[in-house]
Amino acid sequence: MSLFIGLDLGGTNLKYALGTATGEILVKLSKPSLASQSQETIFANMFAAVDELVAEANRRGETVKAIGAGSPGVIDFENGHLIGNAPNLPSWTDAPIKKNFQQHFNIPTWVDNDANLMAFAEARKGAGQNYRTILCITLGTGIGGGLIINNEIYRGSHFSAAEVGHIIIEFGGRPCNCGNQGCLEAYTAAPAMIDRYRRKLKRYGVLFKIDELTTEIIFQKAEMNEDLAKATIMETCDYLGAGIASIVHIMDPEIVIIGGGIAEAGPEFINRIELVAKNNALKSITEKVKVVKANLNKEAGVIGAIMLASENCRK
Amino acid sequence: MSLFIGLDLGGTNLKYALGTATGEILVKLSKPSLASQSQETIFANMFAAVDELVAEANRRGETVKAIGAGSPGVIDFENGHLIGNAPNLPSWTDAPIKKNFQQHFNIPTWVDNDANLMAFAEARKGAGQNYRTILCITLGTGIGGGLIINNEIYRGSHFSAAEVGHIIIEFGGRPCNCGNQGCLEAYTAAPAMIDRYRRKLKRYGVLFKIDELTTEIIFQKAEMNEDLAKATIMETCDYLGAGIASIVHIMDPEIVIIGGGIAEAGPEFINRIELVAKNNALKSITEKVKVVKANLNKEAGVIGAIMLASENCRK
Repeated sequence: MSLFIGLDLGGTNLKYALGTATGEILVKLSKPSLASQSQETIFANMFAAVDELVAEANRRGETVKAIGAGSPGVIDFENGHLIGNAPNLPSWTDAPIKKNFQQHFNIPTWVDNDANLMAFAEARKGAGQNYRTILCITLGTGIGGGLIINNEIYRGSHFSAAEVGHIIIEFGGRPCNCGNQGCLEAYTAAPAMIDRYRRKLKRYGVLFKIDELTTEIIFQKAEMNEDLAKATIMETCDYLGAGIASIVHIMDPEIVIIGGGIAEAGPEFINRIELVAKNNALKSITEKVKVVKANLNKEAGVIGAIMLASENCRK
Repeated sequence: MSLFIGLDLGGTNLKYALGTATGEILVKLSKPSLASQSQETIFANMFAAVDELVAEANRRGETVKAIGAGSPGVIDFENGHLIGNAPNLPSWTDAPIKKNFQQHFNIPTWVDNDANLMAFAEARKGAGQNYRTILCITLGTGIGGGLIINNEIYRGSHFSAAEVGHIIIEFGGRPCNCGNQGCLEAYTAAPAMIDRYRRKLKRYGVLFKIDELTTEIIFQKAEMNEDLAKATIMETCDYLGAGIASIVHIMDPEIVIIGGGIAEAGPEFINRIELVAKNNALKSITEKVKVVKANLNKEAGVIGAIMLASENCRK
C-alpha cells in the first residue's frame, strides 16, 4: 500500500503526518515551524519532517507515493509556489515549494493554501461529506476561508478566492491588519475579540494588559457563565453571521462549516451564527443552508494535504 | 438556418428578439409586460410575443429551434420555474415558465434569472469575451448580479448565487427593501441615490418631491458638472467599490462588468469604482482584476436568453 505525506506549515508550528490514500492518519507529528528564520531553514525543517515520515513508512514496509503541503498566503497551485508574502513567515516570500520538494525528494508534490486544504479535508472526511458546495471559515489570529464548488477546491482566477477575512462588513469601519477598513477579520479574529472583552472589563474597573488576555480565557469565562465574556463571543457571532450572510448571497453553498475557537466553545454560539446569518439573508437562500461546526479542526490541515496529494496522483 | 427566440421579462417591459445561434439579433421588439395582471395574462402576453417572432422567422423561410427566457426572481434552472416570488410581478409566484412554454409551443425552452442572462450575454458577446470568470453587476431600481465561472453561469446550490444586491456593506445599517439592514442595494440602487441627492439639495434649500427626481436627472446634472449630483454619484461609486471588494475576495474573478445607469454616465465613475474596489481589497487579488463598463446593456437580457437557448440545444 502506498502512503502519503501531508504537511501544514503555520506561523508557529509545522504539523506533519503520514496517511493512506483515503486520508486515514497513521502517524501525526508537530514541531516549531521556525517561522522567523530564513527560507532555507524553513525548507530544511520541512525536509527533515518528510525524512522522518519516509523512514516511518519504510519501517512499515511501505513507500511514500506523494506529498501534499499547505502554506499560508496565496499559492499558485499550478506551479506550487507562494505568490508574494505570507503572514507571520517573513522570509517565505515567493517560496518555490513544489519545485524544491520535488528536486529534493523526487516525489510528486502538490501545494495549496492552508485554509483551502482545511476546507478540502472537511469536504472529504469531515462535516462536509455528502455536500458538493461548501463554505468553510476558520477563526483564529486571522480568519481563514476555503470554498468547495462542485466537489473541488475553488481557487479563483488568481488563486485568491475565499479570502473571507477581508470582505467588508462595515464600510469605513475598524482598521484591519491588511491596511483596509471594515474587514470581517477586524471584528471577528482573536485580537478584535480580546480588544472588545478588555473594553467591557474596563467599564467595570477590571484591568487586563492585552498580552495577558487570550481568546482561551474568554471562552473559559464564558463556560463559567461570565456575562461579559459571553456578550463578547455573541457579538463576534453577530459579525460573523453578517459576514456569512454576504458570502452566502454570492456563493449559495449547501453548508457553512465553522472551525477554530468559537466552533469549540459550544453549540449556542454556532446556533447564534446560523440565526444571524439567516436573519440577514434572503429567505430563498438561507432557508436551506446549514451552519455547522468543523469536525477535524487541528488535524484538518494535514488531512487536506494528504487528500490533495492522493487525489492529484490519480488524475 | 435555425433561429432562436429570446425573451426578457421585466417589471415594466417585455423585451423579445429573434436571433441566430451565435446571438446576432435579427429583430428586436418590446411591449408592456402587464406585470400587475394575472399570471395567465402575463403568459398570454409572452406567448403572443413568441407568435410574432415565429411568424417573422417563417416569413424569412426559417424555423425557431428553441426559446430562452429571462425572468426576475429565483429560477430553478433544471425545471424552468420560478421559486417563490418575483419583485414587481405580484402574480408571477412559482410560475411554471418552461412547462407552459413547451406545452404551448412544443419548442424546447430554457429559463434563467434575468441578471444571470445579462452576465451570460456579456460573457459571450460583450465586455466579458475572452474571460472565463466574470462578475457582472447591473444597477437600476434594484441591483442585479450574475457570475460566470469557468465559462458557465454559476447558479449556486439553490439557484440563488450572485444576489449581489444583498451582501452587507454596513452591519446594522440602512434598511433594505428585502427586510434586512445594510445591504449594498440600500446604498447604491436608484432609490438610495435619489434619496441622497434630495437630502443634499435640501441643505441648499432646493426642494424636490421624491417622485419628481430620477437617476436620469442626477446623471444629466452631473454631466453639466453640478457638484451635488456628482458627489451623489461618487458616493454611490464608493459603496459599490466596497461591495465589489467584498465579492472579489470571495470569487476572485478576472473581470468585473458594470451595467446600468452609472456605467453609461461616463468613464470617471467606472474609474472611481475600480479605484475604491482596489483600495479596499488585498493587493494580490485586485492588482490583476479589471472593472469595465457593460457593452450590451439594454439588449443583454434578450441576447443572453438567445445564447442560453442555442447553447443548451447543442448539449
